[in-house]
Amino acid sequence: MSEKKRTTIILFSGEYDKAMAAYIIANGAAAYDHEVTIFHTFWGLNALRKNEHVPVQKGFMEKMFSKMMPRGADKMGLSNMNFGGIGPKLIKDIMKKHNAMPLPQLIEMAQEQDVKLVACTMTMDLLGLHQDELLEGIEYAGVAAYLADAQEGNVNLFI
Amino acid sequence: MSEKKRTTIILFSGEYDKAMAAYIIANGAAAYDHEVTIFHTFWGLNALRKNEHVPVQKGFMEKMFSKMMPRGADKMGLSNMNFGGIGPKLIKDIMKKHNAMPLPQLIEMAQEQDVKLVACTMTMDLLGLHQDELLEGIEYAGVAAYLADAQEGNVNLFI
Amino acid sequence: MSEKKRTTIILFSGEYDKAMAAYIIANGAAAYDHEVTIFHTFWGLNALRKNEHVPVQKGFMEKMFSKMMPRGADKMGLSNMNFGGIGPKLIKDIMKKHNAMPLPQLIEMAQEQDVKLVACTMTMDLLGLHQDELLEGIEYAGVAAYLADAQEGNVNLFI
Repeated sequence: MSEKKRTTIILFSGEYDKAMAAYIIANGAAAYDHEVTIFHTFWGLNALRKNEHVPVQKGFMEKMFSKMMPRGADKMGLSNMNFGGIGPKLIKDIMKKHNAMPLPQLIEMAQEQDVKLVACTMTMDLLGLHQDELLEGIEYAGVAAYLADAQEGNVNLFI
Repeated sequence: MSEKKRTTIILFSGEYDKAMAAYIIANGAAAYDHEVTIFHTFWGLNALRKNEHVPVQKGFMEKMFSKMMPRGADKMGLSNMNFGGIGPKLIKDIMKKHNAMPLPQLIEMAQEQDVKLVACTMTMDLLGLHQDELLEGIEYAGVAAYLADAQEGNVNLFI
Repeated sequence: MSEKKRTTIILFSGEYDKAMAAYIIANGAAAYDHEVTIFHTFWGLNALRKNEHVPVQKGFMEKMFSKMMPRGADKMGLSNMNFGGIGPKLIKDIMKKHNAMPLPQLIEMAQEQDVKLVACTMTMDLLGLHQDELLEGIEYAGVAAYLADAQEGNVNLFI
């Protein structure tokens, strides 16, 4: 085991507020000099999507899924008080007023702080997401890689 | 503390995708030679229900609850894009295409790998679930047993 | 690292059943002689609200948010089978029948057992919650304080 503390977060959820929590903890832990990994699986993968349409070959069901899921962090809804999409706008306005960083900036900051952002390849297949549709500079792995990180970890969270 | 690594998961949620995540991590950790426990509480207990009706004496409210909850892993909905029950069918079709194991098989595999499956007796009472309605070969315990496992654990998750 | 075991729970969710799970684990861990912290953030802050109206100066959006969020533990909904507010009543009736402690009492018990209850100041700002609106005897902190606790922890959960 290395001497560095380690924080490993599974981001399963696809909501703006939960992803914010994940990235705030990750950035905090990185500032504390932890080795930090966020492992994105299922709906959490949507936080890593580019916000433009990327033309890739897909089957019918994959096309449908990827059309209905939010394209990137900024388009995600809230887990609570979403109000058909008005909730996220309200929260973002309040965040601006309080100078809180919006999610896309939190993700950029995580990348600058060398937080390892991993996309779960198995669930990418299930949801029909291709590497071309996801942000640059992330890694691709499965549950074995997650466990290798997590079993040496100090803070393990499932969000 | 034993030399073996230990993974302890609380499965609180009653959705197909979250239960899949729990069982994929559990099976992965067992393959990595961890001692693994999944502690099922609240809606997560539904993953352990037999899929046939079991005649047991229940009060009115317990009967209502257990009628409205999914009877077994295969009947659970999705936490996202459930679309009134179409979402799970779509996901299962896609999983078949990718040779991904469906949830009931993941549970069988966990039992074969000696993952300890525990049902929380306190929440069984609350939801009106009887031992006869749950799968064979599982254990029954409360929060003290959970903590005894978790406090020696390397990977602790709440799903 | 101190010799005492440590349990640190982030309560992000604002539902009665999830908060119950958090407080049952916390009380169990305290009985096991762990140092226990529950760090309340986002919707989990509602568990700490006083149940009466507290007159404080707020902007329009903060007023709206705090009006629509449940005022205290007893008013929270269920994450599943909420049925427009009937679900929580049913659960509470069943709990009474089984002599299970309702959430407000679980919170009192946690305070008596010296479980450290922390409110996340950053998300208090976002949701427009003031200290006057929250229970007495809690602490106020941010992600750095959370990490300081969690990185020495045995059981870390995100609920």
